[in-house]
Amino acid sequence: MARFESLTLSELPGGIWRTRLPVRFGSCDPAGIVYTPEYLNLFNGVIEDWYGDALGLPYHELVGTRRTGLGYAHVSADFARPSSMGDVLDVAVIVRDIGRSSVKLTVHAFKDDAECVRATFVTVTTSLVDHKSIALPDDIRLALKNYQARCEASASPASTSLGYGPSSLPA
Amino acid sequence: MARFESLTLSELPGGIWRTRLPVRFGSCDPAGIVYTPEYLNLFNGVIEDWYGDALGLPYHELVGTRRTGLGYAHVSADFARPSSMGDVLDVAVIVRDIGRSSVKLTVHAFKDDAECVRATFVTVTTSLVDHKSIALPDDIRLALKNYQARCEASASPASTSLGYGPSSLPA
Amino acid sequence: MARFESLTLSELPGGIWRTRLPVRFGSCDPAGIVYTPEYLNLFNGVIEDWYGDALGLPYHELVGTRRTGLGYAHVSADFARPSSMGDVLDVAVIVRDIGRSSVKLTVHAFKDDAECVRATFVTVTTSLVDHKSIALPDDIRLALKNYQARCEASASPASTSLGYGPSSLPA
Amino acid sequence: MARFESLTLSELPGGIWRTRLPVRFGSCDPAGIVYTPEYLNLFNGVIEDWYGDALGLPYHELVGTRRTGLGYAHVSADFARPSSMGDVLDVAVIVRDIGRSSVKLTVHAFKDDAECVRATFVTVTTSLVDHKSIALPDDIRLALKNYQARCEASASPASTSLGYGPSSLPA
Repeated sequence: MARFESLTLSELPGGIWRTRLPVRFGSCDPAGIVYTPEYLNLFNGVIEDWYGDALGLPYHELVGTRRTGLGYAHVSADFARPSSMGDVLDVAVIVRDIGRSSVKLTVHAFKDDAECVRATFVTVTTSLVDHKSIALPDDIRLALKNYQARCEASASPASTSLGYGPSSLPA
Repeated sequence: MARFESLTLSELPGGIWRTRLPVRFGSCDPAGIVYTPEYLNLFNGVIEDWYGDALGLPYHELVGTRRTGLGYAHVSADFARPSSMGDVLDVAVIVRDIGRSSVKLTVHAFKDDAECVRATFVTVTTSLVDHKSIALPDDIRLALKNYQARCEASASPASTSLGYGPSSLPA
Repeated sequence: MARFESLTLSELPGGIWRTRLPVRFGSCDPAGIVYTPEYLNLFNGVIEDWYGDALGLPYHELVGTRRTGLGYAHVSADFARPSSMGDVLDVAVIVRDIGRSSVKLTVHAFKDDAECVRATFVTVTTSLVDHKSIALPDDIRLALKNYQARCEASASPASTSLGYGPSSLPA
Repeated sequence: MARFESLTLSELPGGIWRTRLPVRFGSCDPAGIVYTPEYLNLFNGVIEDWYGDALGLPYHELVGTRRTGLGYAHVSADFARPSSMGDVLDVAVIVRDIGRSSVKLTVHAFKDDAECVRATFVTVTTSLVDHKSIALPDDIRLALKNYQARCEASASPASTSLGYGPSSLPA
């Protein structure tokens, strides 16, 4: 049923950044599972942590101090299995594409070693003064490329075929 | 920049269900615009209202009383223009595809007559007792088909080419 | 068990502003009832609507254009009965106290004619430029006093004893 | 302006459970500070973690498996200073009162060593089958008393006067 081929945690390249995401009561709906829009909220928080921890660029400095907007032109998510209160998800971020003023990230959430949700976020860098798009600042571009290279370098033959690096990017 | 060709309100078929969505303070982020995951939350509320108002099937009866899950296998959204506190969006729902146990809806939000966000939700009907997928119940299927027919019947030549009805569905 | 004596809708003064609040799926938790913090979010939206509709001062102009912060120094809520998906609450706002730079409001939510939640919000007016408190702007003060007077004038003997007007304010 | 005397972190007893709470973009409002209702959501998550980490009673087992509701009869919060994106708060939980079917907790959030928010949560234990109140289960009562005792035992003279233990409880 899922629209993606679920990865296992071991298929992720060693250089990839990962975090643990506990599923709390307040994130769940009357069906007892994570409320769908809340996944996007949780993943947005994961991406924020990733900017600081993996790229060395604290999100609040980019958005707050530098007034560089990192809003989304596109978000999507596909769900293979629901998650419930008490689950702890492993979540990883992959850089898929770096454009002139946009970045495409995928977020991969794993439950018990199997990917249960995959989301895509396309960020467009804007000036928060006038909300117009701006070229991706050089330091962000460099940090993204370095992160891609770290993932690429440590990718196993299996994971390489799954396409983590720049060479596998769609046009 | 948008990944979709923005419609205008007048291009919507007359039989379509629409609602007004005020953008409140609590839906906005430090950039002063609607927080991206909050769009999905707001649209989920729109879809819920649509079940009751347009289909005659109150959502809380489906999910609460009948224990029919209407969870999502896929959600996505594309953003053409940001919305700010004080904006009032017009939001319409179109039925795109009716499968054995799934329904594909698109949600179209308009600001000042121009479409600013388009979202897609693919619902899979499940039993909330065991979270397994079930065939779309007959009364839901019938209500969806009737809604599609109403939209189709009232579609202008312009809007027909934009594809509201069953004949334009992807395989 | 409740910490307040539940009012009935008919005990509210005629001049009071009220709105209808449908309880949606996304506001409910795995216990099937409104998630407690979500009540505060919903009521914050009610207060926002009240500023525009009852006071004639659109909230987004105050906060957005004029950069007058309406943040809270205190919030509290007491719950007499839970609300579930599909309930439609009647919600009313009463002005309890108008200080130099603060306003105390109570929000009253009714389910089937009986008050089920009562919340208190103490707003402190600030400049959003430096987040320092400022005196309540004259037009806001006047609008609040006019609203109080409308509620007072139309209060029934029963509701007068419940204290809607300035004379019943705590020191 | 605050309605409470701010503690410093060093005034907390050694046996108290504490956690770190990063303030993320998605928790902040257009004023650039934590959206008030979101504090209650964040603190609800803190309390959930505290049940598992400090009491040894995972919240999802209580609510999910045992169907013991831990809903609130009362919540309140007082705000001394705002918090912004990028702040990391220290948050501690104190057990204030243990009743027949209710528990009163206070949550204390510190920014740069000074208490910036203090919240109170009164939980009423219910059966999630019929939403009726039930006596506090014995194992929860025991865990709460043990936690109180740990805080009491390690309280400094200064913090004792601030009242962490059972002897200082209101009637």
